[in-house]
Amino acid sequence: MTYCVGMVLDKGLVLMSDTRTNSGVDNISTFRKMFSWSVPGERIISIMTAGNLATTQAVISQLEERTKAPVERRPSILEAPTMFQIATIVGHLLRDVIEGRQDAGMQGEGPRFTASMIVAGQIKDMEPRLFLIYPEGNFIEASFDTPFFQIGETKYGRPILVRGYDKGMSFEDAVKLLMVSFDSTLAANLSVGLPFDLMVIERDKFEPLHQKRITAEDPFFKLISSSWGEALRSAFYSLPDYAFDD
Amino acid sequence: MTYCVGMVLDKGLVLMSDTRTNSGVDNISTFRKMFSWSVPGERIISIMTAGNLATTQAVISQLEERTKAPVERRPSILEAPTMFQIATIVGHLLRDVIEGRQDAGMQGEGPRFTASMIVAGQIKDMEPRLFLIYPEGNFIEASFDTPFFQIGETKYGRPILVRGYDKGMSFEDAVKLLMVSFDSTLAANLSVGLPFDLMVIERDKFEPLHQKRITAEDPFFKLISSSWGEALRSAFYSLPDYAFDD
Repeated sequence: MTYCVGMVLDKGLVLMSDTRTNSGVDNISTFRKMFSWSVPGERIISIMTAGNLATTQAVISQLEERTKAPVERRPSILEAPTMFQIATIVGHLLRDVIEGRQDAGMQGEGPRFTASMIVAGQIKDMEPRLFLIYPEGNFIEASFDTPFFQIGETKYGRPILVRGYDKGMSFEDAVKLLMVSFDSTLAANLSVGLPFDLMVIERDKFEPLHQKRITAEDPFFKLISSSWGEALRSAFYSLPDYAFDD
Repeated sequence: MTYCVGMVLDKGLVLMSDTRTNSGVDNISTFRKMFSWSVPGERIISIMTAGNLATTQAVISQLEERTKAPVERRPSILEAPTMFQIATIVGHLLRDVIEGRQDAGMQGEGPRFTASMIVAGQIKDMEPRLFLIYPEGNFIEASFDTPFFQIGETKYGRPILVRGYDKGMSFEDAVKLLMVSFDSTLAANLSVGLPFDLMVIERDKFEPLHQKRITAEDPFFKLISSSWGEALRSAFYSLPDYAFDD
């Protein structure tokens, strides 16, 4: 499994992903699931991936080859004029890779090579945008009503995001919120694991404002993880008391 | 879907279940998922169910018929000498019902009639006990390390249970904790719905200490639901601040 979250704020975009991949609990590895490209001053694009690793790596490799070989006939994400077109490119590629594997595999009961992706970024003179790409290649865009996307093991960390998110929050608070959401997931599910990758993209900057790999030794994450349990218990005990009225 | 939680405390047992069943989002009904039997002064048994409604109703009906017809040859849960034997009876019945439906259905790709159950209770001169029954008919028992069980849509409400549970807590605090856990689930998932059923079983009492149906109009649940969002945000903002160190 995997856990990745991308959110849109007034100030820009904040992304976080874990790095655990597993095929059963006895075959665990660390793989990066966040990838980014930028043309300084013009565009920044970041992609996070969940699902079958062979599928997501094939998609990313093909995207990277395209950015390296501009003579290639099919469009490159560094040349597409809008984020919408970039999401379309990634969606088509994802669907093609999944369908290719499916055809090559066994009919019907074969293994499933499914995957989903979050695409985030901004191109000069346009708004920062955030998309969730489905295995079928189609996608949805974050909006005022749904300002963040999660992929992978999304449920444990969702309640705090729903409650804590605020469009106007600072980047620092957004990072803190993501750390709490990831910590809740980590505490409940073995298939999500440290280290985490973090990227903060400020509006109209076109390069990462802040980028970090958060390891198990990261002092801030350790502090959040230990203080959140305490803060949650205090919050709980601050609630009004239940009374047996019968 | 469904959400049910059973927990063991020093003081006894606390159980809560939702009542939503759905077959698609356009076919929603309310069905009780908590059932209980008691022999005052001697035993109390409570069962919560998740999964295919036809399956769980068949199991409960058969259990009830047995309690009504003592001439019946197979053992009744009101006569079994231990909670362990009661869990065994429920497990066998559950497996038999699921296998019967499976055989009657299509081979291979047919619908799945799976279900799981939480069995809780106490018999005189023995400890209160809590079991999780799997569709295969086998079961596990709650222990010091795992003092509560969840069935159904378990993930959203798990982080607060993991953080807030304390073996020595009062019944009132346990009910409050369950309400927060159910509220978090409700906020994130349409397949879990009000009203909830609540039962508190005090050690060595053999009848419910407190039993209640919590509706959407329940003033305490409404208060918890509105104050928890605020308490969670305060807890979040009480955490140390993140600083971009590069």
